Amino acid sequence: MLKIGVLGGGNGAFITAADLALRGFNVNICETPRFERNIALAKEKGKIKLEVRGNLPIKSGFAKINKITTDIKEAVKDRDIIFVVVPAFAQKIFAEWGAEIFSPEQIIVLEPGNFGGSLEFAEILKKKCVNKKLPIFVEFECMIYSGFKNDSGSVWVSGYKKNLKVATYPGEFINEIFPKLISIYPDLEKASNVLETGLSNTNATLHAPILALNSGWVEHKDKNFLFYWEGCSPAVARVAEKIDLERLLIGKELGINLISTKDIIIKWYEYQGAKGNTLYEVLSKNPAYEWDYAPKTFQHRFFLEDVPYGMIPMENLGKILKVKTPLITAIIEIASRLTNQDLRSEGRDLRSLGLQDVCKEKLLERVRIGV
Amino acid sequence: MLKIGVLGGGNGAFITAADLALRGFNVNICETPRFERNIALAKEKGKIKLEVRGNLPIKSGFAKINKITTDIKEAVKDRDIIFVVVPAFAQKIFAEWGAEIFSPEQIIVLEPGNFGGSLEFAEILKKKCVNKKLPIFVEFECMIYSGFKNDSGSVWVSGYKKNLKVATYPGEFINEIFPKLISIYPDLEKASNVLETGLSNTNATLHAPILALNSGWVEHKDKNFLFYWEGCSPAVARVAEKIDLERLLIGKELGINLISTKDIIIKWYEYQGAKGNTLYEVLSKNPAYEWDYAPKTFQHRFFLEDVPYGMIPMENLGKILKVKTPLITAIIEIASRLTNQDLRSEGRDLRSLGLQDVCKEKLLERVRIGV
Repeated sequence: MLKIGVLGGGNGAFITAADLALRGFNVNICETPRFERNIALAKEKGKIKLEVRGNLPIKSGFAKINKITTDIKEAVKDRDIIFVVVPAFAQKIFAEWGAEIFSPEQIIVLEPGNFGGSLEFAEILKKKCVNKKLPIFVEFECMIYSGFKNDSGSVWVSGYKKNLKVATYPGEFINEIFPKLISIYPDLEKASNVLETGLSNTNATLHAPILALNSGWVEHKDKNFLFYWEGCSPAVARVAEKIDLERLLIGKELGINLISTKDIIIKWYEYQGAKGNTLYEVLSKNPAYEWDYAPKTFQHRFFLEDVPYGMIPMENLGKILKVKTPLITAIIEIASRLTNQDLRSEGRDLRSLGLQDVCKEKLLERVRIGV
Repeated sequence: MLKIGVLGGGNGAFITAADLALRGFNVNICETPRFERNIALAKEKGKIKLEVRGNLPIKSGFAKINKITTDIKEAVKDRDIIFVVVPAFAQKIFAEWGAEIFSPEQIIVLEPGNFGGSLEFAEILKKKCVNKKLPIFVEFECMIYSGFKNDSGSVWVSGYKKNLKVATYPGEFINEIFPKLISIYPDLEKASNVLETGLSNTNATLHAPILALNSGWVEHKDKNFLFYWEGCSPAVARVAEKIDLERLLIGKELGINLISTKDIIIKWYEYQGAKGNTLYEVLSKNPAYEWDYAPKTFQHRFFLEDVPYGMIPMENLGKILKVKTPLITAIIEIASRLTNQDLRSEGRDLRSLGLQDVCKEKLLERVRIGV
């Protein structure tokens, strides 16, 4: 059985480590020393409590973790696959931290990749370790679980995505790597390349517009609301659908056959009961979202991650491909003001990936054969 | 004492008619036959019930109206001043309806003007009555009252704006007309021209962003909220402030010294208790807004009037004057999707006023001397 390393200390990292450990894998988990508090309780107990809500193909339990540590050398040593389960803005930090420690034989999985995550990761490793062969990267189109962390020793999970797409970077290694991936997650599907996984990121099409269009409610000191079930009203869903159309057109121009966010959600969660003919119908009653309350602040990854690492690359690509993206631009402008940050200057636009002047053909070649 | 005609049958027209009649003016009110139901009860009783909430310089009472009618000839005959108190999208209807009935000696007051209301009104009269001298028009920067209609026989009012600005069209007649206006509303102030009143429209800077950024809440079937007191959270107000900055820059480029929306609200409502250092502070506790619940639909004048007759002219002017308006554009895009209408193709952009190719100097000349 493959040996697994999980980097990160948030919701996703904890659920990943706990689920895989409960399924019999040998798992290490590693957080940066700066955020040691994120793993303090689990480290003390040597285990993570996982609570499953709903009818998921995973089990609740106390998961025994091999190593819970802030020492990346110890965490990464002898691991076959390393899952980097952190928000996009933290991928860079882990890439730099692990650059000289990862070995070329290890597989590095970015879960999710967000747009261009593996390209950025590879660039950092290349710069830090000149002449060293790079590992192969994998991008998940989204995080496979949906859930939250209660404290540093326990998590709950209410959604588990089936048929999630994955791609390798460089893309030509997918057939070589895929069997290992499905030995861990049997429901995964192959995507054509990391542009497909990057552009299939439903976080980017959903989180920012739903949050922006519920701003007064988000800041109300006494009133909470369910993010999808209440926040995604019919008209809010129409805005998200229009953003989704802009995304689909970008994919079409790149020759990538993307499917709609509505159909992605059904594909992932149909077995949990997701259904409907419109995005509104699907989101507002999806059992996987029953527990998802809206954040009470705009300083949250729904803006700070999903705009700079999702919507801004889409806006950039739109310009290169001459696809108009008026609603994507509108949400970027509004989110920048709601957060009081210039989100365009942060994060990962094509310029930061060295792709600002690239044409469609070069871009497709780059994701196929790598740097 | 001046004889007054009021055209319209909504909140504003009823409050205007009732207040002026209670203050001793002889008042007619006229609604179109199509919307006769708007005046049915008042017509039967011959009066309107006005209820004042809060400490306003106007009185509650049963206001006896001279004529309540759907016959515009009867309503307009022998009137010195005609107040057109309708949403911007209805101004055109009343202009065409009354074109051959208004006399050049009458003053036609658009309350509010919205951007370009008097220019459009004048164009319609000119086309319908070639060779006839045009009346002088007056634009109010906003409606002087804030309140709502309960049924077709009664209204309540919770805000009365002091120091409201007015301009004439053509602009050069302001000193001639102003004494008549302040014989009705003593607190009015002079604006330099109808560009100043049009661009001082706080409805355009506030209504659409606050509504858009509370969309999920608006559509929630059980949950209402106070539009300004709850819907205008600190971050929502920041978005409105940025829109306001774009508006102020347009004014600056035109050589018009606009003041901020925050300062306008304080100027109008300070005597009622409005105060604060930020737009959020001013709006979220303004006593004049204590009763203002948010609409439960997007098919509402906050979008259907304030976007096409407020934000779109601002976006147009921005292009002519090379002032960037990213947030105005963002709200137009989102409102178009929330209403499922192409709001740019409706209403009153500069093209529909024959001003698409106009330069700054021509525009200023036009509002000074008229068509």
